[in-house]
Amino acid sequence: MNIQGRHFTAIWYDPKTDGVRYIDQTKLPWELVIREMTTFADGIRAIRDMEVRGAPLIGVTAALAMYIGVKEGEQSPAEMAVLLNATRPTAVNLAYATDQMLRICGTEKLSAGLASRFLQRALELREEEITRCRMIGEQGLSLISEIAERKGGEPVNILTHCNAGWLATVDYGTALAPVYLAHDSGIPVHVWVDETRPRNQGAKLTTYELTQHGVPNTLIVDNAGGLLMQQGKVDLVLVGADRITANGDVVNKVGTYLKALAASDNQVPFYVAAPPSTFDQQTATGRDVPIEERSKNEVLFTDDHGSSIAPEGTPVHNPGFDITPARLVTGYLDGTILA
Amino acid sequence: MNIQGRHFTAIWYDPKTDGVRYIDQTKLPWELVIREMTTFADGIRAIRDMEVRGAPLIGVTAALAMYIGVKEGEQSPAEMAVLLNATRPTAVNLAYATDQMLRICGTEKLSAGLASRFLQRALELREEEITRCRMIGEQGLSLISEIAERKGGEPVNILTHCNAGWLATVDYGTALAPVYLAHDSGIPVHVWVDETRPRNQGAKLTTYELTQHGVPNTLIVDNAGGLLMQQGKVDLVLVGADRITANGDVVNKVGTYLKALAASDNQVPFYVAAPPSTFDQQTATGRDVPIEERSKNEVLFTDDHGSSIAPEGTPVHNPGFDITPARLVTGYLDGTILA
Repeated sequence: MNIQGRHFTAIWYDPKTDGVRYIDQTKLPWELVIREMTTFADGIRAIRDMEVRGAPLIGVTAALAMYIGVKEGEQSPAEMAVLLNATRPTAVNLAYATDQMLRICGTEKLSAGLASRFLQRALELREEEITRCRMIGEQGLSLISEIAERKGGEPVNILTHCNAGWLATVDYGTALAPVYLAHDSGIPVHVWVDETRPRNQGAKLTTYELTQHGVPNTLIVDNAGGLLMQQGKVDLVLVGADRITANGDVVNKVGTYLKALAASDNQVPFYVAAPPSTFDQQTATGRDVPIEERSKNEVLFTDDHGSSIAPEGTPVHNPGFDITPARLVTGYLDGTILA
Repeated sequence: MNIQGRHFTAIWYDPKTDGVRYIDQTKLPWELVIREMTTFADGIRAIRDMEVRGAPLIGVTAALAMYIGVKEGEQSPAEMAVLLNATRPTAVNLAYATDQMLRICGTEKLSAGLASRFLQRALELREEEITRCRMIGEQGLSLISEIAERKGGEPVNILTHCNAGWLATVDYGTALAPVYLAHDSGIPVHVWVDETRPRNQGAKLTTYELTQHGVPNTLIVDNAGGLLMQQGKVDLVLVGADRITANGDVVNKVGTYLKALAASDNQVPFYVAAPPSTFDQQTATGRDVPIEERSKNEVLFTDDHGSSIAPEGTPVHNPGFDITPARLVTGYLDGTILA
């Protein structure tokens, strides 16, 4: 998708330097900073510090980090996979990607030939995510088209939580892929963007990428979405996922469950968009997924310059995800079967 | 309730100076600033700029402002009531208080005698709110005691949204009155405090007043409460109200509805605490209540020093309240009938 009219993806391989480049998302929306991953440790840090984030994107980043790591030759692929999987416990895409990479090496020793096969597989995984996101977009486009027809030309109002756009994947996005395809095909869409406390991925990233691509959007606090649904101002909820368990439960950014409840209570369709790498058939239900507990400073400080939002010493609990039970999900957009 | 071991109320009359003093809540939790309301315009400003906030407190503030206004003698009580009612459209307590004041003057001209009767009535309304909050506390105490008994000495976990404590009333609070009475009587309680975006009344005021009074509490983002209920970490939800309509719908700080949905979905009792001045028998349902739209800067800037949380020019929608349908309310604590 576009930034200032120029096409970007969230991460890419540069054959000229044999290096991996990515957008540092902690600097957005204020600065567009492109970083180079030159060591395996860079890759670990990029994921852990959330310079790259979004379930599909951290999977692709992990795969590319393993290529860099194989070139370095300091650790075995199996050791790298363990380190990568430990950076973010909730999203299953990390484990999916490291597993895919491990499958191509068996017990083979590090070598130039192995590095080349690692690069090829990592780039395939990246392409697969892009293709899958585009297919998710087409699935969702048919949903949006139907609503647009029913509304006779009025904009279709879509609510989204967190950032499940192209910055969270590689291109297109999951939840936002249908939005981009609808917009590009001339269907009037408008997105209500949950700010998504505590890290404000909605306020910082979703507004940014939508506006840069020309899609009308309005920022709201996370508390407001229920009222908007009560007032009939939301036609469709589209969110991404960090993990979808065997029974269809959706583990996604904390607060998603509250929007699913409101959607159900107001008969607003609630769709979850995610590529196959997000589906975890090995885990029975959402309750079996570890929920990442994050730093209290994410809650207390909203930027590097501001003061704490609460009195000094206030205890904070900061879980990163919640569980949307399958019964609240109208449908899944996985880029395979049409919705 | 206490600040640094000393008893405070949110607003009081000082007979020595014949003046009205109140805590400027926009300065909390960083500074305890006591202001004097010396003109009617001061009273209007205090309510509009949310130096005083909370439905019961703005009612009492309006009554005292009318006393100050009658002393000034520049506007009729009816004119003052119109100006006061327009400052905050959603809470009904304002209209209740100005109506109570107007009833005692009829068409009488401004005079010293009238001023004295205005003072007396305003102080009565203040005392009524305190008494009623204490009774709400006793109603809720029996609820908390029952849960405490069932938990055999484990702390009772109470989730609250926004600030419905003594800072929102005059003393005790509405939702927090039962918490204070339970704590003071030795029942172990712990409060999950929703930060309550965009103005963060939970993070700034609820954590402050609970901690100052010695009640254990933990700050969470508004998104987290659903997960906590899914995990069985919430025994009871207690919130206040800005208006309760004839059918029992509760208009309260935006986001309340989402917590009511989660409580209902997880069989957590959801109680609304409010004095009679908050009950509006003249309005049929929550959908008939005007929802205040507030400044976009409340969303974009979290303090005076920080930068905007979103790209420049991002459109913002900032409704202040939402509607919790009566069907989601387990019970009302109004300080009359025992729960």
